[in-house]
Amino acid sequence: MRVALGIEYDGRQYFGWQRQVEVDSVQAQLERALSKIANEPITVHCAGRTDSGVHATGQVVHFETNAIRKDTAWTLGVNVNLPDDIAVKWVKVVDDEFHARFSATARRYRYMIYNYEFRPGILRSGVSHYRGNLDADIMHQAAQLFVGEHDFTSFRALHCQSKTPFRHVHEVNVTRQGMYICVDIKANAFLHHMVRNIVGTLLEIGQGNQAPEWITELLALKDRSKAAPTAKPNGLYMVDVTYPERYELPKHALGPLFMLD
Amino acid sequence: MRVALGIEYDGRQYFGWQRQVEVDSVQAQLERALSKIANEPITVHCAGRTDSGVHATGQVVHFETNAIRKDTAWTLGVNVNLPDDIAVKWVKVVDDEFHARFSATARRYRYMIYNYEFRPGILRSGVSHYRGNLDADIMHQAAQLFVGEHDFTSFRALHCQSKTPFRHVHEVNVTRQGMYICVDIKANAFLHHMVRNIVGTLLEIGQGNQAPEWITELLALKDRSKAAPTAKPNGLYMVDVTYPERYELPKHALGPLFMLD
Repeated sequence: MRVALGIEYDGRQYFGWQRQVEVDSVQAQLERALSKIANEPITVHCAGRTDSGVHATGQVVHFETNAIRKDTAWTLGVNVNLPDDIAVKWVKVVDDEFHARFSATARRYRYMIYNYEFRPGILRSGVSHYRGNLDADIMHQAAQLFVGEHDFTSFRALHCQSKTPFRHVHEVNVTRQGMYICVDIKANAFLHHMVRNIVGTLLEIGQGNQAPEWITELLALKDRSKAAPTAKPNGLYMVDVTYPERYELPKHALGPLFMLD
Repeated sequence: MRVALGIEYDGRQYFGWQRQVEVDSVQAQLERALSKIANEPITVHCAGRTDSGVHATGQVVHFETNAIRKDTAWTLGVNVNLPDDIAVKWVKVVDDEFHARFSATARRYRYMIYNYEFRPGILRSGVSHYRGNLDADIMHQAAQLFVGEHDFTSFRALHCQSKTPFRHVHEVNVTRQGMYICVDIKANAFLHHMVRNIVGTLLEIGQGNQAPEWITELLALKDRSKAAPTAKPNGLYMVDVTYPERYELPKHALGPLFMLD
């Protein structure tokens, strides 16, 4: 039987999604909890691996199991066995051809910036703090230059293992809500550090250090060293994964937290 | 010189606001950081003491000092010396007759309920999780019965030390935003556990276990044991304190976090 789960986590305490020897990961915690409920070793596959310190409200995983369990065992039962900062949000038994990563047609991330003179006292690892004045309107206008199919070499980590630097960005929206700025970006898939490198560049533009056209230039240069530094992992949330309608996966609020959709 | 500060904190790690021997408190952390900057022992007075696990986005304190410092020393300088989960948000030098507690004419709290089948993975200690279906409209309608001057004996902790059980509730609003319900309440002042006891009672009404008129009955009974249990501290935020306009204290976003005002 193949089972899909919606997962939410605060990535602060973890060395990213992926299971590793000697350090704690979201995957390891989830597999441990699922294996207890299934009473057999469980391996999960996720829609997209998140880096150290990155969060998710809409991660999707699937796994194979011989165990026959009620839905509540895979939700409430697993949640009891997970640490406080990881939670199952929904469960759905899926066809054998469903794959959390390969069936996904798009991913969506939100990057939350706390734009205020002084640092926050609440959710410090869940927002990125920037002191300087940021112009969200100019950031939004500039961000539209990322939309479409592009070679994102200037925005991928040097050690990124993807065979192609091309990705298709469907949509980017930069909006201000009081002291917070949300960068909301949807693409078919993302290269390693791509969201954080895009945000790093938008921050330079939002501060007025660069003009929006800098993005067109950087895309053409295909040189990571010419773009802005990678923005911090704090503030980055994987909020949604799109699958073909026929899988009928449950909808959920994107968040994070009190953000309306 | 008398100085007023706006303070934000995540109360999860603290045994409440008030300085105590042997356990950690927000007051002790703040006084330690201020004393370092002032290079003399500093004692702070707050607008309202919060309980263990309760948070604030709008706590106000004042203190006396002989130290002459720039504003940035009382903000940036103090923040560097505070733990991550406490932060100064603004500073204002005030007249000697200003008192954080006695000059305040009203306090405002928000209680954030996460109303979903499964527990959250993010900000677990910053929201109160309720599985059952809650009708926020009925909660709002019922909450209007608290507005005005009342004897709140049924809603105060048994060990509450206030000389009078009378308080004047100015306003209560219960609103739903997706999976979240916010109870927003403003009063001249609050008795011990008053907000959490009011929320506990609204939760019973929201679940349909009691009719809205139960509130009128409970107010008349003046018996704590007849009302609902105290709601958990998770989810409670002191968001604002009102002072006479002449003090010209800075305005701030109420929050918490991404909640629009």
